[in-house]
Amino acid sequence: MAEECFDVMVVGSCNTDLVSWAPRLPKEGETLHGYKFFTTFGGKGANQCIQAARLGARAIMVGKVGKDSYGDAYIQNFKDNSVHADFVWQASEAATGTATIIVSDEGKNFIVIVAGANMLLGSDELQQVLPALRRSKVLACQLEISPESSLQALRMARDNNVKTIFNPAPAIADLDSHFYKYSDVFCCNESEAELLTGVPASSVEDARQAGRELLGRGCGSVIITLGGQGCVVLKARETAVHHIPAAEVTAVDTTGSGDSFIGALAFYMALYPTMQLEEMAKRANQVAGFSVQKAGAQTSYSYKKDLPKYLL
Amino acid sequence: MAEECFDVMVVGSCNTDLVSWAPRLPKEGETLHGYKFFTTFGGKGANQCIQAARLGARAIMVGKVGKDSYGDAYIQNFKDNSVHADFVWQASEAATGTATIIVSDEGKNFIVIVAGANMLLGSDELQQVLPALRRSKVLACQLEISPESSLQALRMARDNNVKTIFNPAPAIADLDSHFYKYSDVFCCNESEAELLTGVPASSVEDARQAGRELLGRGCGSVIITLGGQGCVVLKARETAVHHIPAAEVTAVDTTGSGDSFIGALAFYMALYPTMQLEEMAKRANQVAGFSVQKAGAQTSYSYKKDLPKYLL
Repeated sequence: MAEECFDVMVVGSCNTDLVSWAPRLPKEGETLHGYKFFTTFGGKGANQCIQAARLGARAIMVGKVGKDSYGDAYIQNFKDNSVHADFVWQASEAATGTATIIVSDEGKNFIVIVAGANMLLGSDELQQVLPALRRSKVLACQLEISPESSLQALRMARDNNVKTIFNPAPAIADLDSHFYKYSDVFCCNESEAELLTGVPASSVEDARQAGRELLGRGCGSVIITLGGQGCVVLKARETAVHHIPAAEVTAVDTTGSGDSFIGALAFYMALYPTMQLEEMAKRANQVAGFSVQKAGAQTSYSYKKDLPKYLL
Repeated sequence: MAEECFDVMVVGSCNTDLVSWAPRLPKEGETLHGYKFFTTFGGKGANQCIQAARLGARAIMVGKVGKDSYGDAYIQNFKDNSVHADFVWQASEAATGTATIIVSDEGKNFIVIVAGANMLLGSDELQQVLPALRRSKVLACQLEISPESSLQALRMARDNNVKTIFNPAPAIADLDSHFYKYSDVFCCNESEAELLTGVPASSVEDARQAGRELLGRGCGSVIITLGGQGCVVLKARETAVHHIPAAEVTAVDTTGSGDSFIGALAFYMALYPTMQLEEMAKRANQVAGFSVQKAGAQTSYSYKKDLPKYLL
C-alpha cells in the first residue's frame, strides 16, 4: 500500500472551549446566573488544521488530548473534518486542554486557558511523526504546546525540506532566536509583533517597521496581520514591504479569524507553491474575512464549496 | 413485585462544575493561563441527595440533565452512589446545567451558573413522580430549578403526608408565601435569612430574630445555619430558640457544606422520625463538619462507614 501524503501538517494545540454567556461579567466572589452554555472545539493548532482541511488540503494533526470525553469528542471532530488524526494521542496523565470563556452581553470576556494534555506532546511523539512529516508539504506551528516541541517540529521540517509557517501565538517576550531561523513564513498579528519587537505595530507604517525588525532575525518571510487593515508582507532579499488591504466585511465575531488566515495560508503554500506570497496573503485574508461574518471559530470556517471560485 | 420505598426524595438541580485554577483571577478582556482544570458533580439538589445516600438513606433524585456527555456522566454518578435515578430525565432541548468556576491561588473566585436543563423540569414530570413520592418519607427542595416546580413538589408532598425540607437557595427576595406554609423544616443560611427577612442574621442573637420572623410566615420549624457558629433551631408552638454550637474543625474548603447539612438532616428526619429536631441539627452539623475538612462538594461527603457510631 502506498503511504499517504499530506499537504498540511499542524503540530499544535487542541482545546475544548467552555463558553458561558451572562448578562455581565461576574465580580470577585460572586455567583452570577448566565443564560447559555456551550462547548466548542478550539485551540490555535487544531483551528488552523481544520481551516486548511475545509479548503481541500489533505491535512494531518499532531497533538495531545486527554483520555476523557473531551478528548474522544475532539478526535471525532478531526475525523468529521477529514483531518488525519492518527497522531492525536490521548494522555491519561492530564485532561484535554480547556479554554474557559465567560462572555457578557456587551461582548466583554474573561478567558482562562488550562493547557493540560497539550503540554505533554514531546520529543518521543515527534520522532514517531517524522515519516509523515517527510510526506507533507507544509508544517504550521504555534505556541500553545511546549515551545521546545514546536521548535523541534520546525527544525525537523527544515531538515527535511518541508516548508514552515510559525505563528508565535500566544506571544512570549523572550522567544528563542531559532524560531525565526526555522520559519519560512513567520506570521503574527499586530500585538504579537509589538511584544516581540518592542515596536508598536498597530498602523500599517508601524507594522512595516516591526516587520523589518522580525525579518532581520532570520525568517524567510514575515506577515503581520492587522485586522481590518489587512496585512503587511516582507520577504528576505526584497526591500519592498507589501501592504495587502483587507476586503471590507461586516465583522460579527472575530474569534479564531487569525487561525483561519494561517490555515488558509498553509493551504495556499502547499497547493499553489509557485504563487507569490502577497497573493497568498491576499486570498488568506479573504478566507478569514468570511470567518468573521459568522459566530465562533471552527464553526465560522468556510468549506471549499462555499467560497468564490477565484479564491481556489 | 413490591414497589420500592424511599427514605429521601430530592427534587432539584444537577450541575456539572467546570473548575479552572489560575494564579489569579483574569481581568476583563484578558486571556490568562491557569494550571489545572477539572469537572466535578454539583448542584444543590444532587449534592443533598448524594449526602443522604452516603449516610445510608434509600435516596431518589428527581431532576433534569441534558442529552449530552455531562448528563450521561451525572446519571452514572447517581448510580455509583446508590441513588435511584429513573426520574432523572435527559432533555434534548437544553444542555446539562453548568457552574463555571475560576479559582485563584488566594481562594478568590468567579462563578457563572447556567441552569440549562434544570429549568425544564416541570409539572408533567412531577406528575409521573407522584407514586414514588407517596412511597418516600422526606422530600427536600431548593431553588436551582424553576420555583414553580419546587413549590409544586412541596405541595404534592404535603398533600400526601410526606415530610418536607425546603432550602431557599439561592435566595430570591420575593419568595412566594406558600413556600413557608409547605415547609415542615425551612432551612437556610445566614445570608439567605437576611435576604428573606431584611433582618441581619450573622450573629446568633440576630439569627434568633430572623428565625422568629421566618417561623411566623407559617413554617413548621426553621433552621438557620451559621457556619462556624453552628445553627439556631425554632419550632412552631415553642417559644424557645435553640442554639446548637458547631464542633470545632479546621475548615479546608466549605464548598457544598450547606448541602451536606441538609442531606444529613433529611437522612435523620427519614430514619429517626422521633428524634428531636435540635438533635438532628446537632448531628447534621457534625456530618457537615467532616465535609469542610476535605476539598470539593460531593468529593468531601462522608460515607456511613467513615463516621463515628454515635452519629448513626
